[in-house]
Amino acid sequence: MFQAAELGSRIEKAEYEGEVPTLRVDLVNLQYDLQQASFPVLIVLVGDDQQGVSQAVARLCEWMDARYVATRVFGMPTDEELRHPRFWRYWKALPGNGELALYTGAWVLGTIAERLTGAIDDAELDRRLNHMQRFEQALVDGGALVLKFWVHLPQSQRKKRVKRARKNGNGRLDDLDQAIFERNDEVMTLAEHVIRKTDVGHAPWQIIESSDARHRDLTIARSVRAALAARLEPGATPPEPSPVPHAEAPKVLDSIDLTASVPRDEARRRRAELQERLSELAARAREKDVSSVLVFEGVDAAGKGGVIRRIAHALDVQDYRIVPISAPTEEERNHHYLWRFWRRIPRSGRMVIFDRSWYGRVLVERVEGLASEAAVQRAYAEINDMEEQLVEEGVRVIKFWMHIDAEEQARRFAAREETPYKKYKITAEDYRNRERWPDYELAVNEMLTRTSTQLAPWHLIPANDKRFARVEVLQRVCSALGEAVGDA
Amino acid sequence: MFQAAELGSRIEKAEYEGEVPTLRVDLVNLQYDLQQASFPVLIVLVGDDQQGVSQAVARLCEWMDARYVATRVFGMPTDEELRHPRFWRYWKALPGNGELALYTGAWVLGTIAERLTGAIDDAELDRRLNHMQRFEQALVDGGALVLKFWVHLPQSQRKKRVKRARKNGNGRLDDLDQAIFERNDEVMTLAEHVIRKTDVGHAPWQIIESSDARHRDLTIARSVRAALAARLEPGATPPEPSPVPHAEAPKVLDSIDLTASVPRDEARRRRAELQERLSELAARAREKDVSSVLVFEGVDAAGKGGVIRRIAHALDVQDYRIVPISAPTEEERNHHYLWRFWRRIPRSGRMVIFDRSWYGRVLVERVEGLASEAAVQRAYAEINDMEEQLVEEGVRVIKFWMHIDAEEQARRFAAREETPYKKYKITAEDYRNRERWPDYELAVNEMLTRTSTQLAPWHLIPANDKRFARVEVLQRVCSALGEAVGDA
Repeated sequence: MFQAAELGSRIEKAEYEGEVPTLRVDLVNLQYDLQQASFPVLIVLVGDDQQGVSQAVARLCEWMDARYVATRVFGMPTDEELRHPRFWRYWKALPGNGELALYTGAWVLGTIAERLTGAIDDAELDRRLNHMQRFEQALVDGGALVLKFWVHLPQSQRKKRVKRARKNGNGRLDDLDQAIFERNDEVMTLAEHVIRKTDVGHAPWQIIESSDARHRDLTIARSVRAALAARLEPGATPPEPSPVPHAEAPKVLDSIDLTASVPRDEARRRRAELQERLSELAARAREKDVSSVLVFEGVDAAGKGGVIRRIAHALDVQDYRIVPISAPTEEERNHHYLWRFWRRIPRSGRMVIFDRSWYGRVLVERVEGLASEAAVQRAYAEINDMEEQLVEEGVRVIKFWMHIDAEEQARRFAAREETPYKKYKITAEDYRNRERWPDYELAVNEMLTRTSTQLAPWHLIPANDKRFARVEVLQRVCSALGEAVGDA
Repeated sequence: MFQAAELGSRIEKAEYEGEVPTLRVDLVNLQYDLQQASFPVLIVLVGDDQQGVSQAVARLCEWMDARYVATRVFGMPTDEELRHPRFWRYWKALPGNGELALYTGAWVLGTIAERLTGAIDDAELDRRLNHMQRFEQALVDGGALVLKFWVHLPQSQRKKRVKRARKNGNGRLDDLDQAIFERNDEVMTLAEHVIRKTDVGHAPWQIIESSDARHRDLTIARSVRAALAARLEPGATPPEPSPVPHAEAPKVLDSIDLTASVPRDEARRRRAELQERLSELAARAREKDVSSVLVFEGVDAAGKGGVIRRIAHALDVQDYRIVPISAPTEEERNHHYLWRFWRRIPRSGRMVIFDRSWYGRVLVERVEGLASEAAVQRAYAEINDMEEQLVEEGVRVIKFWMHIDAEEQARRFAAREETPYKKYKITAEDYRNRERWPDYELAVNEMLTRTSTQLAPWHLIPANDKRFARVEVLQRVCSALGEAVGDA
């Protein structure tokens, strides 16, 4: 794979100096046009030649308007980053539409280093590669232009460089350079494996030879220019493929026994018990650095708010945060739809309760036609992958679908007309949503079918009887947390 | 000061239970109305009764709709927080318009604890109190409703409580509780001092007796309700006071010698030297955890971009970030105007370069009438205070005003018509700004006069000669950084 990058490719000074001025004008003008565009650009620049990478990054920043290049050097994670899932820091820093980010270090290099030191084994490596691949795929599918460069220095050149440096008395290599130098075959085998596995169709790797700096920098910059220009061409955004029609999902909702109920006294007693237990479990989770994400979805008026209040009541305010999800802000709309959720993933030991969630993509956005059918069809896998990552990194994902039938909803809507709480006042939209009940049922059934995984199953909660629903949710949160802190 | 909170005030169960249901409805309805309002609410709940505070916080979250109460427990700072100026974490978490945040712990308690342990002396304490006071004043002036509660437990009650707890075998107190118990006189003297010094007119403290939980919680909630209701009353936003007319500022700009220039060869030589020196200094700054903030303001076409590019070129990409400031986003408009800058303050060892900055408040926003005259007049002090905080916490603040005269600007505008860079294309707005030259001159002179402090002076850069300007700025950045890393 690296053969073509060991040819000793060079660019002569005259050619270089002749080309650079035009190239710079082009790049800056493209940056200017990009600011009006509705997609983000992510350039990933890494490689086995760390010195070459940092020179190439500096060169690109020099040639472009550095003010509009968000360069992020992902080295050793900070303490705060270590307390979050691995990809949290990459998600958080993602560029919005019209923005350009340059990532270096990033997910590739750290993983190679960890495999090299034996910190992770082959199975773990492949698991990680799978996440990277799907992460990049999700970005590309979301409309991002993703450009990935691997800067390669042939070992023969590296030997010369080390020799020269040692002669000049500054021969110290950092750990990674040392490993690349001394265990070159191993490193290159690993690098090839990583590159091959993450060579996503729309985010391919380009391997750039680093023997000659002019060749390296000019090749990268030309490629950035070409990709930007092509993508900024009017009508260049590729039409979305028509999604493969998906068979109608089984009617999971029908399996919910809405007659489930519990007598008032028993409910009160059990709720008190469970809240006390939850309180203890949360304290244990804090001590053991176990974090959790609770997701609440459900029919309008199914009682999500009431349940969330009962959970929160059992917790110490510093241990949890409630995130109510409504229409995205301008900034959120300008990012990948999962960005606003990744940003809010709890640090270890904490709980975040999502009142509605990323499932909006396959529910309201689907039914209201706010997301294309292709985007919706992709979302199931993207969501499953996100949850898988969270779970594998030690975050419990506990998802609830709160269900009531149309008659109960009608009763509650009527009751709300009488309630003194303004926020419960019924609006035209509520009745409109009600008319869409069959569309929602279809969407919910498909969601439950396709996103109820072993790692993050849906809990279906019959909620015609509020008391039953509250006790049931508390019970399930306790049992999931209990398992997580080793006290089932 | 605490006498009135040692009267043994109580509320009987019947009264409590009679009142709570209405109170809850009122609070939730006020929260609902707040969502449409154009001001944020910040409730600060602290005190000498830690247990009481956390009960009161939990109660308030229970009575209100917890989903729309952003509770922030500020305990020991995290590693990331420790690497930023002290108030960074409070600024970052500020609620936007229509949002409500509940801060506990926060700036008050930590400071008392530090004074108690002797970590800081009286002078430092007063310096901090001054910042707190001005921070709160800035929030209030920016339109926030700030409610501060101090929960007080009389020492006689504390003794009983400790005795009871010890009897039940859980008599361990944490450090702060221990200190409050054993050094009560000292603590209360300190608390009184802190409360008195931060009792800002529009953000007064309310001292709440904690002997009886019902009294405590109901009193706080009633007060929140009353304050919210009053502020949500149509027309309740207080009219801004007319600012005291300010004498016309001295014509500082006229003192800039725009004939300053440097021969091409000398400029090239010195620039190379200075860039090399800057590169070394930045590496030193990283090692020594010295952070810096560079601020660039100037006349249109004065050459800010070119200077910034030369600085960036000398730095390692991981050491700096460039923040170009343009019109605020929706989210930024919904927050205090300083919020978007505080969020971007560098962590220790890094540099942030602001291409335009918070000075927009007293420049473009003033000239274009986007901020009221009263807001502009307040801004000078708010900005000085922000910069003072940064400097005192070890962040270098280096500010440049790049100046050219109207003739040179006209020449550059004409030249831009010919440049191949699209972003330099002259728009109608540029010419409009040009017509406002006298207004801008007035604003700039006032800004330079009122915000050039010893801690963060303005560097006035004659920029009719670009080469001179670039060398001069590099020179001054080097000398400021050199001083900061102890290598002047």
